[in-house]
Amino acid sequence: MAKSRYCIGIDLGGTFIKFGLLDQDRARSETFQLPTPEGGADPVIAQMVAGATRLMKKHRLAKADVVGVGVGAPGPMRISEGIIIAMPNIPGIENCPMGRLVGQKLGIPAVLENDANAAGYGEYLCGAGKGGGDMVLLTLGTGIGGGIVIDGKVVHGAHEIGAEIGHLIVEPNGEPCGCGQCGCLEAYASASNLARYAISRLDRAKKLRTSLRAIYERRKKLNKKRKKEQKQEELNMADVNAARKAGDALAAEVWDRGSYYLALGCVSISRLLDPDLIVLVGGMTKAGSDLIRPVTEHYRRLHWVLTEPKTKIVIGKLGNDAGMVGAAGVAWAAFGAK
Amino acid sequence: MAKSRYCIGIDLGGTFIKFGLLDQDRARSETFQLPTPEGGADPVIAQMVAGATRLMKKHRLAKADVVGVGVGAPGPMRISEGIIIAMPNIPGIENCPMGRLVGQKLGIPAVLENDANAAGYGEYLCGAGKGGGDMVLLTLGTGIGGGIVIDGKVVHGAHEIGAEIGHLIVEPNGEPCGCGQCGCLEAYASASNLARYAISRLDRAKKLRTSLRAIYERRKKLNKKRKKEQKQEELNMADVNAARKAGDALAAEVWDRGSYYLALGCVSISRLLDPDLIVLVGGMTKAGSDLIRPVTEHYRRLHWVLTEPKTKIVIGKLGNDAGMVGAAGVAWAAFGAK
Repeated sequence: MAKSRYCIGIDLGGTFIKFGLLDQDRARSETFQLPTPEGGADPVIAQMVAGATRLMKKHRLAKADVVGVGVGAPGPMRISEGIIIAMPNIPGIENCPMGRLVGQKLGIPAVLENDANAAGYGEYLCGAGKGGGDMVLLTLGTGIGGGIVIDGKVVHGAHEIGAEIGHLIVEPNGEPCGCGQCGCLEAYASASNLARYAISRLDRAKKLRTSLRAIYERRKKLNKKRKKEQKQEELNMADVNAARKAGDALAAEVWDRGSYYLALGCVSISRLLDPDLIVLVGGMTKAGSDLIRPVTEHYRRLHWVLTEPKTKIVIGKLGNDAGMVGAAGVAWAAFGAK
Repeated sequence: MAKSRYCIGIDLGGTFIKFGLLDQDRARSETFQLPTPEGGADPVIAQMVAGATRLMKKHRLAKADVVGVGVGAPGPMRISEGIIIAMPNIPGIENCPMGRLVGQKLGIPAVLENDANAAGYGEYLCGAGKGGGDMVLLTLGTGIGGGIVIDGKVVHGAHEIGAEIGHLIVEPNGEPCGCGQCGCLEAYASASNLARYAISRLDRAKKLRTSLRAIYERRKKLNKKRKKEQKQEELNMADVNAARKAGDALAAEVWDRGSYYLALGCVSISRLLDPDLIVLVGGMTKAGSDLIRPVTEHYRRLHWVLTEPKTKIVIGKLGNDAGMVGAAGVAWAAFGAK
């Protein structure tokens, strides 16, 4: 019997780097993470090599047992060249050929992928999208990222800037987005922008009675005493969700607003790509059916009448492992046939 | 030297059926058309068989020289089964296995395709998209249809209802669309809906001075004397474009509105699919650079600042032949390797 072969998945985040294995039957190992070091590209690459080496030792793998390494990372990049152009959350990494450098140091072929694409491919291979079918992933966090898998392949776009689903325009001439556009889905439905919306409602309607006000005022006071780098967000979607569960009306309004815009984006995605599945991941999806239910209700209401709504909207199954699994999967796709 | 081999392309429209050949080197023959007969599926299929037979005779082709037949048709369909569910413009065709029936009668394998997808694939193979690269097509007519080609393949979607770009939602809670959604791109930027918008402006602002008013009032008067089936559209985009060229302010406003919404749709398409090309076809594209220039200007203004706008917006090159060429191309894709 042939020995199992593996790909290593590395998920580079602003705080941690996550490591794991994916074998040829799509079975995945336990993962572990190391802190993301400061100081630019060199220490980050050294940490990746250290983590990958530790992973191989732990599973008693020789180089010959490892088919390839996949690195998922945020930030604008030239995916096919393996180059990270910049990383907003990790200063000091610019025009870095991270794919090639990690591969050279390990002596194993390596490939780079955008983190949202990797998470999408991970859910496709081993999570909510397992079993095949076209799939679109939305990551609901500070921003909204996206991944598209059609016919089993990650869609990168002609200039490798596709699947930026957070920047679908859902409100023409709407809220300004960090990207320079106005009215992006991200500006209306990302966790941080929804929290910001709640704050703007509190600021505008001083007499509005809501349990969110006490939290907001307390954090504001604390922040006034803190240095800039210690300041914390004055309201977040975990606060909003907790207040919503307790029956707070403003929290319910904010939650519904997010669900509505997500559904609006999902209708446009369905019209363009008609996927089997739209998979939501990220902090807000901890609410489970409390998120899927209102999103699906809005989706069915906003959806055309020419066909029944067929695309399913679900929550991802891999949690924080999706990016690591997908990165390893991308390595399988790149090097598995060789 | 091997004899040339051909696929037959058939483009079924509400008024005419168009016929032509595409050889293995993507060279296409002259086309001809026959009227679309009334009376349901049987006479339509008979006309297709007659046209295909005439085409083969004209080019002295035996069955063995023809690799396959592609039929492009409007209306909801189950593409992979070759079944037309209904045809709004050709009454009497319901749940018709048109692909199989045409193929059987000709004794040549046949395949069915949505007409906008076929036009997109035609432009991809032989027109504006020649040379490869990912491409999105928009047909600007009574409605707005769409075709998507990624990695050389037509994207149908998991339930074969993808690429409905006219039904991207560009104005949440906006104008009702015939599809049951509100705020569809089609409701804002199709030729017929733009003409309708011009009429609504004339009706609302009775004192607005514009050369369009005389045309509108004259046609309204004529229509009052006509029977229902003889009534003509009281204003169309050819009128609007002519008035715009002559410096009419309302016409310029209507034209700019269409360009703006098309650009808005193109930005969302770019964020999702990042194609090399967005190709516009249909009546309004007769305006040439007078359409492309304002659409591109709005596109660049609405586009994010994270990357330069790279997707090009251009006008199709095949005119009314695109659907026929694409239908033949789909037959090549389906049967060419066998």
